[in-house]
Amino acid sequence: MKPLKVVKIGGKLIEDSAKFDEFLEDFKNLEGHKILVHGGGNMATQISEKLGYETKMVDGRRITDEDTVKVITMVYGGLINKNIVAKLQSMDTNAIGLCGADGQSILSVKRPVKKIDYGFVGDIEKVNSQFIGALLNDGVVPVFSAISCTKEGVLLNTNADSIASEIARAMSKSYETELYYCFEKQGVLADASDDESVIKEIDFLQYKTLVEKQVITDGMLPKLQNCFEALEQGVHKIHLGNHQSLKENTTHTKIIQ
Amino acid sequence: MKPLKVVKIGGKLIEDSAKFDEFLEDFKNLEGHKILVHGGGNMATQISEKLGYETKMVDGRRITDEDTVKVITMVYGGLINKNIVAKLQSMDTNAIGLCGADGQSILSVKRPVKKIDYGFVGDIEKVNSQFIGALLNDGVVPVFSAISCTKEGVLLNTNADSIASEIARAMSKSYETELYYCFEKQGVLADASDDESVIKEIDFLQYKTLVEKQVITDGMLPKLQNCFEALEQGVHKIHLGNHQSLKENTTHTKIIQ
Repeated sequence: MKPLKVVKIGGKLIEDSAKFDEFLEDFKNLEGHKILVHGGGNMATQISEKLGYETKMVDGRRITDEDTVKVITMVYGGLINKNIVAKLQSMDTNAIGLCGADGQSILSVKRPVKKIDYGFVGDIEKVNSQFIGALLNDGVVPVFSAISCTKEGVLLNTNADSIASEIARAMSKSYETELYYCFEKQGVLADASDDESVIKEIDFLQYKTLVEKQVITDGMLPKLQNCFEALEQGVHKIHLGNHQSLKENTTHTKIIQ
Repeated sequence: MKPLKVVKIGGKLIEDSAKFDEFLEDFKNLEGHKILVHGGGNMATQISEKLGYETKMVDGRRITDEDTVKVITMVYGGLINKNIVAKLQSMDTNAIGLCGADGQSILSVKRPVKKIDYGFVGDIEKVNSQFIGALLNDGVVPVFSAISCTKEGVLLNTNADSIASEIARAMSKSYETELYYCFEKQGVLADASDDESVIKEIDFLQYKTLVEKQVITDGMLPKLQNCFEALEQGVHKIHLGNHQSLKENTTHTKIIQ
């Protein structure tokens, strides 16, 4: 199987333009088929505030109302996405910018209301691996914003980590797929107060031990849980680290089965 | 040669959601290969005002400063483009939304400063007909927002009529290309005060006579001039009319050589 690298970049890295430029240089240098998935960080919130839209919270969770999904479509789907594509093109990387509506690439349903109505938030149902595969075959580098779309044509705010992992899972049927989560830390830390204490490799047994010892807590818990599910469903390897982790031989965390 | 229809829809039609839905229904029903190009109307101005950005005018011409091109990238490239794609997908039309940066599809240069510095405005240099052709071959319907991009990765506000006609010209080497300009009128009028006085067909000789008689004036002059240039460069036929002109046998103006 041909190799494929699916790279997710977090919002905070996008906001730091020097680090982001470095990241794009490393992304450009990745050989073979590749896909970029980006979040949007605080830019959507800033634009929302400027437009006079209120951030709605219920039980500490952010709600995506109609105004918010419009801003997300503008900021993630337009401003950030098209600027990433423009930069990559100027670096001779043949990128195209997509959201889940394009080519019906990421079909979702509006999250069912249980305790909380999250509003215009998508739970992914199906990744169109045939369409994405056709683009890769044409030598194109797809750049996805974190927006999915329902069968009925409703755009939905969607977790960028989920988009990256669902794309990786779907593509792993035809490609030896590696998934990269790039964020502000160098990787999973053995000691949260020591940025140098990166754990270089974690398999499922080690993960269980680290959870028991409460080394892995909070936001890292669902992220890693999700990683092991992706590995079970065919993803070859997963990398967690900062903007430099795309380079060979840099310190970061590898998640293996 | 296979037929291809390039359809440009004006901003005012997009703002009228009932007419726009009718238009999309007719666009969906067009047989064969097709491409949609859209403007954005007043929505960008409204968002700019809400964000507190001033509209800059020099000698009565609007200037695209850095803030304005950001808003255009958000509104045209994101909000409007992705919503059109989502609607078309819900109607079983396999659309993808693009700006000129995507696949380096519309390469431009920043308009040279002569009397006026228009700012971030693009003059089109090259349409990537190979990339667009590959998408059409994959059964995709490209939907273009009116944004082009320089080699250096700078996004530029670009006239939607120009984008449509440059795409039509470039594609006419491989396709029998018809170009549709859909706007709020039924076509070119013999009497500006009579909406029913549509001139059904205009060739170049008739055009010259109509200009002399001052039937064709103002904004219609450059539009028609541009049409005849496009016909000379290989575009097969051009249609001017309202949202219904995509239907068979409706009254509108056909421009022929």
